Amino acid sequence: THSRLFYGACTGHSSFSPRTHACAELSSKHVGEEVTLCGWIQYRRHDLFVILRDFSGLAQLLIPQDESLVDLKNTLCGLTLETVIKVTGKVIHRPPGQANKEMPTGEIEVSIGSLEVLNVCRKLPFEIKDFVKKSESLRMQYRYLDLRSPQMQSNLRLRSQLVMKMREYLCNIHGFIDVETPTLFKRTPGGAKEFLVPSREPGRFYSLPQSPQQFKQLLMVAGLDRYFQVARCYRDEGSKPDRQPEFTQVDIEMSFVDQTGILTLVEGLIQHCWPEKMSPVSVPFPSLTYSEAMRQYGVDKPDTRFGMKLVDVSEALYGIEVGFLREAVSHPEGCVQAICVPGGAKHLKNKDLESFKQTAQTQFNQELSVVVLKEDGSWKSPLSKHLPDSVKHQLLQKLQAEAGDLLLLAAGAAEGVRPLLGKLRLQCAELLEARGVAVRDPSAFHFLWVVDFPLFLPKEDDPDQLESAHHPFTAPHPEDAHLLYAQPHKVRSQHYDLVLNGCEIGGGSIRMHRASMQQYVLEKVLKEDTSLLSHLMEALDSGAPPHGGIALGLDRLVAIIVGAPSIRDVIAFPKSFRGHDLMSGAPDFVSEEELRPYHVTVNWPAEHQ
Amino acid sequence: THSRLFYGACTGHSSFSPRTHACAELSSKHVGEEVTLCGWIQYRRHDLFVILRDFSGLAQLLIPQDESLVDLKNTLCGLTLETVIKVTGKVIHRPPGQANKEMPTGEIEVSIGSLEVLNVCRKLPFEIKDFVKKSESLRMQYRYLDLRSPQMQSNLRLRSQLVMKMREYLCNIHGFIDVETPTLFKRTPGGAKEFLVPSREPGRFYSLPQSPQQFKQLLMVAGLDRYFQVARCYRDEGSKPDRQPEFTQVDIEMSFVDQTGILTLVEGLIQHCWPEKMSPVSVPFPSLTYSEAMRQYGVDKPDTRFGMKLVDVSEALYGIEVGFLREAVSHPEGCVQAICVPGGAKHLKNKDLESFKQTAQTQFNQELSVVVLKEDGSWKSPLSKHLPDSVKHQLLQKLQAEAGDLLLLAAGAAEGVRPLLGKLRLQCAELLEARGVAVRDPSAFHFLWVVDFPLFLPKEDDPDQLESAHHPFTAPHPEDAHLLYAQPHKVRSQHYDLVLNGCEIGGGSIRMHRASMQQYVLEKVLKEDTSLLSHLMEALDSGAPPHGGIALGLDRLVAIIVGAPSIRDVIAFPKSFRGHDLMSGAPDFVSEEELRPYHVTVNWPAEHQ
Repeated sequence: THSRLFYGACTGHSSFSPRTHACAELSSKHVGEEVTLCGWIQYRRHDLFVILRDFSGLAQLLIPQDESLVDLKNTLCGLTLETVIKVTGKVIHRPPGQANKEMPTGEIEVSIGSLEVLNVCRKLPFEIKDFVKKSESLRMQYRYLDLRSPQMQSNLRLRSQLVMKMREYLCNIHGFIDVETPTLFKRTPGGAKEFLVPSREPGRFYSLPQSPQQFKQLLMVAGLDRYFQVARCYRDEGSKPDRQPEFTQVDIEMSFVDQTGILTLVEGLIQHCWPEKMSPVSVPFPSLTYSEAMRQYGVDKPDTRFGMKLVDVSEALYGIEVGFLREAVSHPEGCVQAICVPGGAKHLKNKDLESFKQTAQTQFNQELSVVVLKEDGSWKSPLSKHLPDSVKHQLLQKLQAEAGDLLLLAAGAAEGVRPLLGKLRLQCAELLEARGVAVRDPSAFHFLWVVDFPLFLPKEDDPDQLESAHHPFTAPHPEDAHLLYAQPHKVRSQHYDLVLNGCEIGGGSIRMHRASMQQYVLEKVLKEDTSLLSHLMEALDSGAPPHGGIALGLDRLVAIIVGAPSIRDVIAFPKSFRGHDLMSGAPDFVSEEELRPYHVTVNWPAEHQ
Repeated sequence: THSRLFYGACTGHSSFSPRTHACAELSSKHVGEEVTLCGWIQYRRHDLFVILRDFSGLAQLLIPQDESLVDLKNTLCGLTLETVIKVTGKVIHRPPGQANKEMPTGEIEVSIGSLEVLNVCRKLPFEIKDFVKKSESLRMQYRYLDLRSPQMQSNLRLRSQLVMKMREYLCNIHGFIDVETPTLFKRTPGGAKEFLVPSREPGRFYSLPQSPQQFKQLLMVAGLDRYFQVARCYRDEGSKPDRQPEFTQVDIEMSFVDQTGILTLVEGLIQHCWPEKMSPVSVPFPSLTYSEAMRQYGVDKPDTRFGMKLVDVSEALYGIEVGFLREAVSHPEGCVQAICVPGGAKHLKNKDLESFKQTAQTQFNQELSVVVLKEDGSWKSPLSKHLPDSVKHQLLQKLQAEAGDLLLLAAGAAEGVRPLLGKLRLQCAELLEARGVAVRDPSAFHFLWVVDFPLFLPKEDDPDQLESAHHPFTAPHPEDAHLLYAQPHKVRSQHYDLVLNGCEIGGGSIRMHRASMQQYVLEKVLKEDTSLLSHLMEALDSGAPPHGGIALGLDRLVAIIVGAPSIRDVIAFPKSFRGHDLMSGAPDFVSEEELRPYHVTVNWPAEHQ
């Protein structure tokens, strides 16, 4: 035990601890110092060196060869890998020629003077350094070993630092208040993805909300002015790839603000929290309206790191006597759209083109025309013989296409054609990259605002009815508010999405703050039962300020920044695809006795009975 | 809409907003400036002034009396209280003699030039300024109005700032990583207070954990070195006063640390986050062993703001022929303990003394002797005639008692007597304070460590069996570790509690980091089924570093700091006593259809069927 005074004086990574340094902190400037390190035996080279690892990295320890320290040497050489030790020793220069430039501590080593074995590692299903090559389920089962990898250590550390900087920006610079809102709440209307939590009152359930949406708005009504929370949210979606039943969003809401205010706030936030070692982010972020995004990219979250934009070639093909083209172009809302895949003729194979056509058929119920522009400039396509040279020329010009490229054409109603080409555009990029063609710069971060979404969309199962494109609290675009009552389907909203490299990493809106409008939308447009939201309606009528906000998906944002293939790589203890914790075995069976206080019984399916 | 450039240049409370200042920011240094304010109409005085409120406080607006602005005046005078407005006007000095010294903005007023009504307040169940006088259930039902009170605004803001400073201390100064751990987890052995969450797999449930205990230890095994989290925790306790089904703890764990290290870390943490406007906290905090705390205060979380300590008076009373005293003193483990209540004879009434006796009888099955020391020095007590003057004198001396004081004596086994007197000590303090006697300084903050708790306690329903005094992962005291195998009941632990003004606001321990010892304790001492914890046992065997930590109850800590009577006053949306959200009506009934995916049905009690 050390004196309190000693501890109190320290800061940094080794405060309150017997170690003097973290492994990777050592450098040639420490030569001559006696240091104490604590860590894991990463490996041993012959009986000469031990490589010690802690959270910070590696340090090379010199095993004493002196006869007087033979016990120490024997102990050290008998220890299993991943055993935890504390060593004290002197920092010395490595002998000439033995420095390791690739190791941050590569110029020095520590000559061990004394050793304490803190915990022997007995079982290890595999070596730590090979761990990432193991199956994901093994990694998850032994997550506490998986997390020892430098990549996972660095991911979690970066995540913590990034959130800390966000907090500093919001709290310290812009006067936001961090408010915790309940997660045991009431079921929201249509909240089919909300987990239920039985209470001790028969038949009554709490619900784990998908976001603090109602609370953040109520906090604005409460006059809190500026709220944020790094909020745990819940979504029961069964098995969706790369989704987690619990996830984290940076939840922000402020009063007396317009859309520009929120966008500027978020740009500053991203800029402020951006890791220092990466190239800085420039603001303002570019912005596209929803309809522009659909027109150019066929998707509302375009990946703007590469071109291959959608081009409307209807005009060029007007009057062409090919069945599906003619039909499309003659229809008042029909069009022909195309993308040009640079180098596609060379790098994409027949089976790729077949799979594109299949995607078009099965997922979009559309025909796809493919034009391979051979290196000699000739066209390989069933279309070719139907198109006069002038039309071909016009198409090439419009698409800025060259020999060696690939053209994909689809015809029909714009709302059907664009999503198809939007999807194929991304597939082409992935296929080209898989074959070694540089399409997207892996170090590029393209932020993009998508704005002016429609406020309502036709319901999928009943297109005469409207539903909210995002959620029922979104305010209409000021220029369209007058249309709300007569032509609600034409109203744009004040919703905005933040897109990074083609992933939606945030979304928000200016909210309706007047009860009368909110009531109209809920009752007349959406035909919702407002009784479930009566507390919110009353709140809006009690002096609600104009307000708006945003929620950023923290897991996804961090995953993109660190270049992780899955959000599971930036979450300490994620659930599997099926929502299981493979380490502990959750969810698990519980006894009838444990269920009794909650007045529920399990409804076993037939085969269990 | 404002230009992005304009927004980007601003920091502070009014960035990204059309307002130029928050109400309470204005002072005489702004005289002559044109300002824009946004807020709520708090009240109107005649047709002359409007008092505008925002999160920061109040500002006085001067209603224009000029004929040319008669429309503006009429609008203003027609607005209901709590209506939300935006005003632009010039800051002017108040006329001589009209300054209000009690208002931070009391020297100035704003002469309104233009007005925008942002939202009319239509309904209001009561005036905001009277709100705190209303019933708690009404406050909860209209929480968004309750939160407009200056006290609640200040409580939530202080909480946010305090947590921010804690984060800065842990992350920025001491290298801790903020890691989020799952709340959908596996039921822990004996976790009777854990909420259950049905999954979509029949019969399988997640459990909402009471703390991230397992995860924090696994993070240490994972080599994360220093972890913290402001963690949401859950506890289903039915109705306990001033408990919440979800609550927040500042959860801390670090590797390569001993007890002194954690205590010093926490002292620095409290010191760092302490509100600047309050007198600073001095460190180190005083410390008592568990047995000292029980001996002096009869409780393991003593309120050290006042004396009235327990005194062992057995010796003085040895040989006294009063039935219950003699019996107690003659018993080998028996004793007589007493407290002296200064001024108790004067301020406590007969009915108080009767209630003390009743408490002793019903809750502790003990007799209580009461001695009233009259102002003239005489004793009013059934004991009086049995005690020679010399013994009386000795008692008074031991208890430092004077005329006007009250003595409470109890006799029997120490473990029974001390808790009784510990409880009466607190009751006396409360009663005296209720009668206007200053016992505890309301502005004093007495931190105290309680250490050296027993590791195990006899089970209440089977005293031959031992159970963990805190939790099964607590390490034994190093001096007692050798007793673990032969005399486990004698082993002290490395558990520590942090007590503030008699409330436990934190607890933690150094953990067992060797699998063999953990296995022994779980299997041999506690007779637990270790299969439920097999992942933790495996983890300890895979190179677990020595580690320890603490969890601080944030809600309680903030409540004490702001002087709130209940933790509900520092939580934005608390649940009622019965666990209900009175605003939304959670928990609520859900349809059978909504339960179907979770394979559960409600077991209605007989009267519902």
